Amino acid sequence: MGGDMESFVEVDAASHFPVQNLPYGVFSSKNADAKARVGTRIGDFVVDLAALHEAGLFEDAFDSSCFTHDCLNAFMGMGRSVWTQARKRLQQLLSKDEPKLRDDADLRARVLIPVSDVEMQLPAKIGDYTDFYASRQHATNVGTMFRGKENALPAAWMHMPIGYHGRASTVVKSGTAVRRPCGQVQKDPADPKQGSVYGACKLLDFELEMGVFVGPGNKLGSPIKIEDAEDHIFGFVLLNDWSARDIQKFEYVPLGPFGAKNFASSISPWVVTTDALKPFTAKTSAGEQNDPEPLPYLREPGYSTYDIRLEVAIQAEDIGPEPFRVCESNYRHMYWTHRQQLAHHTVTGCEMRPGDLLGSGTISGDEEGSFGSMLEICWKGTKPIQIKDGVERKFIKDDDTVIMTGWCEGEGYRVGFGECTGKILPAQPQ
Amino acid sequence: MGGDMESFVEVDAASHFPVQNLPYGVFSSKNADAKARVGTRIGDFVVDLAALHEAGLFEDAFDSSCFTHDCLNAFMGMGRSVWTQARKRLQQLLSKDEPKLRDDADLRARVLIPVSDVEMQLPAKIGDYTDFYASRQHATNVGTMFRGKENALPAAWMHMPIGYHGRASTVVKSGTAVRRPCGQVQKDPADPKQGSVYGACKLLDFELEMGVFVGPGNKLGSPIKIEDAEDHIFGFVLLNDWSARDIQKFEYVPLGPFGAKNFASSISPWVVTTDALKPFTAKTSAGEQNDPEPLPYLREPGYSTYDIRLEVAIQAEDIGPEPFRVCESNYRHMYWTHRQQLAHHTVTGCEMRPGDLLGSGTISGDEEGSFGSMLEICWKGTKPIQIKDGVERKFIKDDDTVIMTGWCEGEGYRVGFGECTGKILPAQPQ
Ligand SMILES: [Ca+2]
Ligand SMILES: [Ca+2]
Ligand SMILES: [Mg+2]
Ligand SMILES: [Mg+2]
Ligand code: NI
Repeated sequence: MGGDMESFVEVDAASHFPVQNLPYGVFSSKNADAKARVGTRIGDFVVDLAALHEAGLFEDAFDSSCFTHDCLNAFMGMGRSVWTQARKRLQQLLSKDEPKLRDDADLRARVLIPVSDVEMQLPAKIGDYTDFYASRQHATNVGTMFRGKENALPAAWMHMPIGYHGRASTVVKSGTAVRRPCGQVQKDPADPKQGSVYGACKLLDFELEMGVFVGPGNKLGSPIKIEDAEDHIFGFVLLNDWSARDIQKFEYVPLGPFGAKNFASSISPWVVTTDALKPFTAKTSAGEQNDPEPLPYLREPGYSTYDIRLEVAIQAEDIGPEPFRVCESNYRHMYWTHRQQLAHHTVTGCEMRPGDLLGSGTISGDEEGSFGSMLEICWKGTKPIQIKDGVERKFIKDDDTVIMTGWCEGEGYRVGFGECTGKILPAQPQ
Repeated sequence: MGGDMESFVEVDAASHFPVQNLPYGVFSSKNADAKARVGTRIGDFVVDLAALHEAGLFEDAFDSSCFTHDCLNAFMGMGRSVWTQARKRLQQLLSKDEPKLRDDADLRARVLIPVSDVEMQLPAKIGDYTDFYASRQHATNVGTMFRGKENALPAAWMHMPIGYHGRASTVVKSGTAVRRPCGQVQKDPADPKQGSVYGACKLLDFELEMGVFVGPGNKLGSPIKIEDAEDHIFGFVLLNDWSARDIQKFEYVPLGPFGAKNFASSISPWVVTTDALKPFTAKTSAGEQNDPEPLPYLREPGYSTYDIRLEVAIQAEDIGPEPFRVCESNYRHMYWTHRQQLAHHTVTGCEMRPGDLLGSGTISGDEEGSFGSMLEICWKGTKPIQIKDGVERKFIKDDDTVIMTGWCEGEGYRVGFGECTGKILPAQPQ
């Protein structure tokens, strides 16, 4: 499954969606009232998998009626052998040497839908959403800003992937406009005892993250072992964990972030599978975990991640026609891997279900241009980004659109995630 | 709807389930393979609401097909006018003066099912579960133990109902056995820098809470105003927020409790409606909120709660045949009410959905016998409860069953919650 595979559907070399990718998503038609259903994507086409199912083209492989659902949960729950069968079958059907779809104009018309004719939906019904804090540089940056260099990392940080439960109801699809939240902000940030005022968040931020969709779950009380974790992971999306820094600052002691995070978290619509990412397996930028070595339940023989290039840009009227890039990072800048996150999440016996979402935590590299949030990029507002004469940013302004993208660079092709975008609407104080 | 209302079904004065209560739950039959469906309860009978629906007995009132579902979410979403209609119709059908059900032996046999023949299920598919920290005495106790008397309450505590997102997938029904979790516990509790060992939780605790089920939700970006909050609240259950104190201590800085809480939270099966609780409206034990006065979005003209008596007992072999009561508290010991919690939860625009669950936070009164967790009752293990010669408890032991109960005391009748129970099974370290 290298770069030599080719489809009869023409795909640009810069496209995120060659036949090597074949991510899964849920789409509906813009101009028809057919219900939402599962698709994959190749080049500028969505491949209607419900239509392929109805044409009997998966028939002998597995029960493909899951592709007629309006969410991927059932398919996610079917496990790796089914995922691999589905992928093989799709790569075969789309290959330039296979006439079945290539030469059947009628079938092609039903199955290949121009992306401009569809509206993407959330890929899954997310039972639970968890967010981690697993990039060492990010945790060090934030810790340094708020607690000083000496105490930057919390005591537990090197011992476990620290995470917290998030809000599943407000995970929204890319393109959803996000209302700037209101809440309580401190009167005097230096003195919490002075209390707070009600108002719109003034320090609105993005967090550049990857999201992992869980495949088959586990039974309550039965942890997922690190060596089995890979088989419980369906695939990845881009995730923007919108954060209201000023609301967070007042509320988060001692139980963690709440309103500062629960107003929205945006994800990209196409779930890129671990089969598609495998060729881009890479060492983390941490290299090894040996100081300290993790406890055995977190120890990975194949400690590794994926080389996924990540970028964030801001689009706004005062910036001009082109989005302005504010950060370039890479998923390699993870200290705790997604497998370690899953093992830690379930070590207590916590039940996972297909379609559960795990956020990686903000992904920051060790250079300034690679920090994954405005908080870090502008170092708490002390170093604004100069965009052009008279135009700068410290945090996100009203009507700004934040655009995240990510892809793996192959030889002559890319396996990518498309975009995760969200525009900030002005607050509506009560 | 006072104590004078009577049903043709005989109900003991000590029963939690007279005709004044009529809670909602989901049940399945032990000896038939009929699917799970919605019921209410009177005395020792479950009233099969799907059967009443099929008999056409709600016909003109509202669309009662929601009672054939295996969860209450649809009914919860229909709102107060439907809830009130359903309650009126049920009280009428069950009244001693109404012949329709009373005199129809055939219908009665289909509709009234002895509780011994049913198995109760979770009342709703819980989209999101949130836990608050809203009893002042509890927060003061915990703060005093861990930060000293002077700094007992976190800075934000008097300004907002502090809460955190919990784990929806592991909310389990009363009677579900709970496996003692494993995780990371500190080598030296006084020195987090020494790190941790993997092992079974040694400090397993309950937290006595009430759970609120949300009725109609709100649109993303549109907060629920405090004056409208009551209409978004369907009803209440007992909630045991199981807590692994030693796991919590190491993991919770800075993002809050995670594995310490996500292994299980138990709820009682019958959801008692706000209509049934209304006669028991009472001042909170805080009296007023005026130091400081809450911000306007949290200010309640009718600042009040319910007078719900709460008890926790432990049953175990070494204790003997009778459960031993370890605490008596009351829902009146809330500082932040459930309406304030809902208003605060949505002030950022967070979307609520029917069936979402809000935990009140541990409910502790100001006397020692009224503390709602073993942590407080035994003051961090320093004051074990002496149960009898040679038998004591500081925390919860393997094979202990924790039994919570709660009820409102009317004149000659009770409106109660039944029990929320859970037995702790020994850990299974990997
Ligand atoms: Ca985050
Ligand atoms: Ca709690
Ligand atoms: Mg978020
Ligand atoms: Mg819990
Ligand atoms: Ni959830």
